[in-house]
Amino acid sequence: MTRVLTGIQPSGALHIGNYFGAIKQMTDLQDSSDLFIFIPNYHALTSLKDGQALKNNTLDAAITLLSLGIDPNKATFYVQSDIKEVLELYWILSGYTPMGLLERAHSYKDKVAKGIAANHSLFSYPVLMAADILLYDANVVPVGKDQIQHVEITRDIAIKFNNEHGEIFTLPDFKVDENVATVPGLDGAKMSKSYGNTIDIFNDEKSLKKTVGKIITDSTPLEEPKEFSTCNVYALCKLFLDEAGQKELQQRYKQGGEGYGHFKMYLKELIWDYFKEAREKREYYLNNINEVYDILENGASKARKIAQNKMQIIRDAAGIYR
Amino acid sequence: MTRVLTGIQPSGALHIGNYFGAIKQMTDLQDSSDLFIFIPNYHALTSLKDGQALKNNTLDAAITLLSLGIDPNKATFYVQSDIKEVLELYWILSGYTPMGLLERAHSYKDKVAKGIAANHSLFSYPVLMAADILLYDANVVPVGKDQIQHVEITRDIAIKFNNEHGEIFTLPDFKVDENVATVPGLDGAKMSKSYGNTIDIFNDEKSLKKTVGKIITDSTPLEEPKEFSTCNVYALCKLFLDEAGQKELQQRYKQGGEGYGHFKMYLKELIWDYFKEAREKREYYLNNINEVYDILENGASKARKIAQNKMQIIRDAAGIYR
Repeated sequence: MTRVLTGIQPSGALHIGNYFGAIKQMTDLQDSSDLFIFIPNYHALTSLKDGQALKNNTLDAAITLLSLGIDPNKATFYVQSDIKEVLELYWILSGYTPMGLLERAHSYKDKVAKGIAANHSLFSYPVLMAADILLYDANVVPVGKDQIQHVEITRDIAIKFNNEHGEIFTLPDFKVDENVATVPGLDGAKMSKSYGNTIDIFNDEKSLKKTVGKIITDSTPLEEPKEFSTCNVYALCKLFLDEAGQKELQQRYKQGGEGYGHFKMYLKELIWDYFKEAREKREYYLNNINEVYDILENGASKARKIAQNKMQIIRDAAGIYR
Repeated sequence: MTRVLTGIQPSGALHIGNYFGAIKQMTDLQDSSDLFIFIPNYHALTSLKDGQALKNNTLDAAITLLSLGIDPNKATFYVQSDIKEVLELYWILSGYTPMGLLERAHSYKDKVAKGIAANHSLFSYPVLMAADILLYDANVVPVGKDQIQHVEITRDIAIKFNNEHGEIFTLPDFKVDENVATVPGLDGAKMSKSYGNTIDIFNDEKSLKKTVGKIITDSTPLEEPKEFSTCNVYALCKLFLDEAGQKELQQRYKQGGEGYGHFKMYLKELIWDYFKEAREKREYYLNNINEVYDILENGASKARKIAQNKMQIIRDAAGIYR
C-alpha cells in the first residue's frame, strides 16, 4: 500500500478552510493508503518562541485531529518530537545538502520578506522536512503548491545519499490535489488565519452565528432573486451539501423572498450540524487528556519502530560507530 | 570544579604534534578540572563520506586517547553520537541562531575556499558545537585561535535563548593555551596531517626510524659543532627532555664529533621510550575491543544523565510537549 506522509502544523484553532483544504482528505486517505500523519512541533519552533503556547497548540492539534476523524487504528498518528531519530537523520542529511539547494528555496526568502526572523532553523527547515519524509520511506507527500520545492529538495538530498551509499532512501513524489475546494473566507478571499477571515471549527453556537453574520454579501433586497454563483454564503454552504441539497439552495436563491440573513442562518445550521460529532469527541478528549497521551504514545511506538530500523541502516552507511 | 569540555576529532592516526599540542594538556586537565572529553563523530560527517573509515577512526580515536592517558575514571569520556540529546538541542538552538551569525563565521568560508564541499552541515557546524558545549553547562572550552569565534557564537546563541526563557544556559569561556609547544614537522613547518610532515605516535620501530631519518637538517659535517637552537631534531628532542636532559643534548651539539644521524637516532629512542606504555596499552585495547566499548558506554551513561536532565529543562522552556 502506498505510504502517504503529511504533517498538520500545531498553529492554534483550526478553521473550516483547514478542514476542507486538508484534513478531510486525510480522513479519506487513511482508508485508501498507509497514512502517516504527524504534528510537526519541531518545525513550529522556527517561529513560535512561547513554550507554553507551543505545548498547548501541540496537544490541541492532536485533540482536533482525533475529533475530526483521524483514526489512530488506521493511520500512524504521532507528534514529531516523540521520534528523536528524525533529528539524527536531519544532521546526517545535512552532509548531503549543498548550500545552494537551500539558498534557492523560495519559502525561506518569502518568509523572511514577510518579516519572520531569519534564523538558522527557518533556513534549514527543508532538511528537517526531508528527514521527516525519508525516515519512513514515504512514497507520496500531499502538498500545497508552495511546498512542491521542498519535496524536490528531499529527492535531491536522497539521490545524493543514495549515490554514495546505495539505494537506501525511497524517492518520494509530491501530490498536489487539484480537486481540493478553495474555501472562501468571510471577505471572499481564501480563508486563512493570516487574513483574519476564518470561521473556526470549534466555535460555540453563539460565536459561530456572530462570525457567519460577518460574511460579506451584496445588497440585493430580500424579495428579489439572488445570484448564488458569486455569493460567499452559497460557496460555503456548498461544502456541506450533496447535489440535491445544492440544487435546492440554488432554487431558494433564484426565487427571491429570502434575504442573506436567512442563508447565513442556514449556513450556520449546516456547520453546526456537520461538526456535531467532532464537537462531542473534542469535549470527550478534553475531559480525558490521558487517553490522548496514550493514543499519541501508541502512534509514536509504531512510528519509532520503523524509524529505529531505518536509522540502523542509515547510521551504518554513514559510519556512526554503533 | 570548573567543567572543561573538549573534542578530539577522529581523523585517523595521531601524530606527536596532536599529542604535545592538545592531548597531553587533556591528561593534565583531568586531574585539575571536571573534564568532558568526547569524540565528535557527528562533526566528522561534514567531510568524511566513507562510513567504514569513520567507524574505524572513531574507535581508533577512543583507543588512542585511552592509551595516551585519558582516564575514564577521572574524565567523562564519550562518543558524541552516543548522546542523541545533542541533536535535539542543536535543532532547538537553531531557532535562536540568526543566519548572519553563521554567515560571518570564518571557518566555513576558509574551508570552502580550501575546496571542501559547501554542504549545510559544514555551514551549521557552529550550532552543533554550541549544543555540545551548552548541553553540559561547560565553563571553559580550550581552543585553537581558529575556534575562538565558534565559542563566541555559542555565547551569542546562549544569550538569545536565556533572554527569552531565563538563565538556562551557562555562558562558556574559551581558553587559548599560549604555553602549548609548537611542534615542528619533518620539514620544520608546523606538524600537520595536511602538510604530510608528521611523525605518528603509533609507528612500529622500523617505520619510526625511517620517518625520523627524513627530518630536514643543515649539512654541517659530523666533526664540527652544531647549532641546536635552529635544528628541527633538537626542537623535537626537547619535547621529551627535562632541563638537565636539554642541557646535556645542547652540549653534544656544541662539542661536535656527532652527526645529525646520531641525534636522529637519539630522538627515535626518546619517542620510542616515551610512548612505550601507550603502545602497550594500545595493544591491549586492540585485543580487548569489548572493554573499549564498555568504557565508552560508561562514559556515555555519565554524560547522558546530565544531558537528559538538562534537556528536560530546555524542552520545557522551548515548548516540546513532553
